[in-house]
Amino acid sequence: MVISAQPTALTTLAQQTRASAQHLASLSGEVRNQTLEQIAQALEKATPAILAANEADRTAAAADGISGALLARLKLDDSKLRGAIAGVRDVAKLPDPLGKVQIHRELDTGLILRRITCPLGVLGVIFEARPDAVMQISSLAIKSGNGVILKGGKEAVRSCEALVQAIQEGLAKSGIDPAVVQLLTTREETLELLKLDSYVDLIIPRGSNSFVRFVQGNTHIPVLGHADGICHLYVDEAANLAKAVAIAVDAKTQYAAACNAIETLLVHAAIAPQFLPVLATALQAKDVELRGDAAAAAIVPMAAATEEDWATEYSDLILSVKVVDSLETAIAHIARYGSRHTEAIVTEDATTAATFLAQVNAAGVFHNCSTRFADGFRYGFGAEVGISTQTLPPRGPVGLEGLITYKYQLVGDGHIAATYTGSAAKPFTHRNFG
Amino acid sequence: MVISAQPTALTTLAQQTRASAQHLASLSGEVRNQTLEQIAQALEKATPAILAANEADRTAAAADGISGALLARLKLDDSKLRGAIAGVRDVAKLPDPLGKVQIHRELDTGLILRRITCPLGVLGVIFEARPDAVMQISSLAIKSGNGVILKGGKEAVRSCEALVQAIQEGLAKSGIDPAVVQLLTTREETLELLKLDSYVDLIIPRGSNSFVRFVQGNTHIPVLGHADGICHLYVDEAANLAKAVAIAVDAKTQYAAACNAIETLLVHAAIAPQFLPVLATALQAKDVELRGDAAAAAIVPMAAATEEDWATEYSDLILSVKVVDSLETAIAHIARYGSRHTEAIVTEDATTAATFLAQVNAAGVFHNCSTRFADGFRYGFGAEVGISTQTLPPRGPVGLEGLITYKYQLVGDGHIAATYTGSAAKPFTHRNFG
Repeated sequence: MVISAQPTALTTLAQQTRASAQHLASLSGEVRNQTLEQIAQALEKATPAILAANEADRTAAAADGISGALLARLKLDDSKLRGAIAGVRDVAKLPDPLGKVQIHRELDTGLILRRITCPLGVLGVIFEARPDAVMQISSLAIKSGNGVILKGGKEAVRSCEALVQAIQEGLAKSGIDPAVVQLLTTREETLELLKLDSYVDLIIPRGSNSFVRFVQGNTHIPVLGHADGICHLYVDEAANLAKAVAIAVDAKTQYAAACNAIETLLVHAAIAPQFLPVLATALQAKDVELRGDAAAAAIVPMAAATEEDWATEYSDLILSVKVVDSLETAIAHIARYGSRHTEAIVTEDATTAATFLAQVNAAGVFHNCSTRFADGFRYGFGAEVGISTQTLPPRGPVGLEGLITYKYQLVGDGHIAATYTGSAAKPFTHRNFG
Repeated sequence: MVISAQPTALTTLAQQTRASAQHLASLSGEVRNQTLEQIAQALEKATPAILAANEADRTAAAADGISGALLARLKLDDSKLRGAIAGVRDVAKLPDPLGKVQIHRELDTGLILRRITCPLGVLGVIFEARPDAVMQISSLAIKSGNGVILKGGKEAVRSCEALVQAIQEGLAKSGIDPAVVQLLTTREETLELLKLDSYVDLIIPRGSNSFVRFVQGNTHIPVLGHADGICHLYVDEAANLAKAVAIAVDAKTQYAAACNAIETLLVHAAIAPQFLPVLATALQAKDVELRGDAAAAAIVPMAAATEEDWATEYSDLILSVKVVDSLETAIAHIARYGSRHTEAIVTEDATTAATFLAQVNAAGVFHNCSTRFADGFRYGFGAEVGISTQTLPPRGPVGLEGLITYKYQLVGDGHIAATYTGSAAKPFTHRNFG
């Protein structure tokens, strides 16, 4: 059932996906939800085959001497698979993102404008090791009426094939062309996928910073995602020390490899002598290495931070520390080194907080809470397709709304533009409904 | 007052614009509107200088043997200038696009999420001859709290300098750094502008299709706009003939050079014998040249359309005509040759219309009305920064919403993510306000 394509056949494959996605988009939200239930059941039925395929992937990866961290991401055991299948059913429970009327306006008597949400078309999703991404992305794509062309990491090829086979069986059982979810398996196909401007409407890369940057630099298709996550925590002179320590420890250590973990702590000079020793003790208990500027190191002994440190996403238990003499200096540092992901301030001064939230240019600006809240599930979006650090919307954690667009439907009764032009022009009514 | 920059100084100039735009963004909507009034008054005061500069531009252009059409676009006379100044005041009257709360949600007690609209930052606007674009774009930028770097065509350089000087005087009188509106004058600066990924957030090209394509292919900055506008009108077998003729004539001839004018007429074989002769008579009265396939030419004598005709935006009084045997064939032709701008059907059959509106992938899908309505002013947006044929939003005619983004503000009281994780995880409330 898994349709494997030669590079030269990729255009045909993408055309099939587009055609089948158009059919999917025409179905009701109820039918799309029933399809997700069929897919969940097919995945349950295929569990032994999926687990065996993942076992084989891991055996091969271990023989290739792959790292422990990568092996952990590759692993799909019974508990993880059950969680992912529950995730498919959770997506079915989300509100239908399609067919929403965003604008409903009379332009003139009998000339009615509607702006209605609709699917993007075909998504290209390229991910590294994690095979669970197949289920999450496919269910979000089906929910939003999109086709999806998946390309997983080569280490996970057997797992991905087993998963996509089950998903395609669920689609077929629902009377939907299995081509709506396709799997590519070779690196050559990835490069070709990035060139399919006419057939793929959005690329979602899931993986390391360098991988995302590679994708961004090698396609003219819009890319949803972000490369770097260099987040800062600024501890203001008016900070509550207990809150500042708790937030700093959470933001650095709760999951250090996450993009919304902090990499640099900025602390006001007036509070640094009291704050840094307490913080250092708390972070040392969590095995965090500190690297600071001269002022920070004069308060708590730590390695010297270099220029490179300020520009580095450690994704690890390392924190760079800089003492600043003002809010403005903190904001300027963030403007220079931040990646516009999530930036936080700890202060009891409302004016200072308001200035920070207004002036810092980032997808998320936080006051007296951890940067780790920057997440689609925590924001209440139900599902997350990625986090965007671009300035243009969608920005920040992106739920299903990143997978849809809209079209303007205008319905008249023979209306022509000439009626509304020139010296005897009829005026528009521009009256909103509802 | 006009700040002119050497290519090597462009980064500094863009940084000044970013800094001054950040100040502008911090001002209230009322102050931004008062600034627009100051600019309108400064433009009124500078009218003699602006008209003289435009006169000099046109004399030089005529001496260079520039075409009549280009000369017409270059011309800025007293009436056009007064209209453009009225346009500046109209922009002031639009609702403030900034500071709108799009999401207001409690994540947990005391942990409050707000999604708030904010400016993009700095716009780069590159336009060809029309000097009126300076006033329109500058006022939209100021209204939305953005800085703008303008690059006009070399034929309009004196006009643009006079206009920007007046605009900068209006800014200064309002206590705003004139660097918020900058003017570039050389072609080398255009190329450098397209490379300023870190300083410019959106490029808006205004000009010919080939010019827009050049910009799209030579920048990694997001581009708002569209190259082609190949729009179709499909006259279904169940069309009302009188409506079909009126709409076809309007869509082709009301302003043939517009991107929302039709280039190709598709007509169902069952109605072609009655429809085409009536249409041909009506279009011949408007000097429209017809080029058709064999079936069309068999009904009304016309030149043969070649494959190239279906893919051409004439921007002129030429219409290609194709007879199709079904709605599906019409939709397939549009999918292949359309540029996803605006596509229309004429039919009295509600089911056929619904199928067309659902299945045609374009920014605008119209039923029983002219494609010429695809326009920000006609849709009631008050102003238009461009029309986007991209699939991702903003799509179609784009008003001020194309010049803004949003950020997530999260305010807590020491909240950390660890509280909401693991076996004893506290649940989120995810309660919307309002």
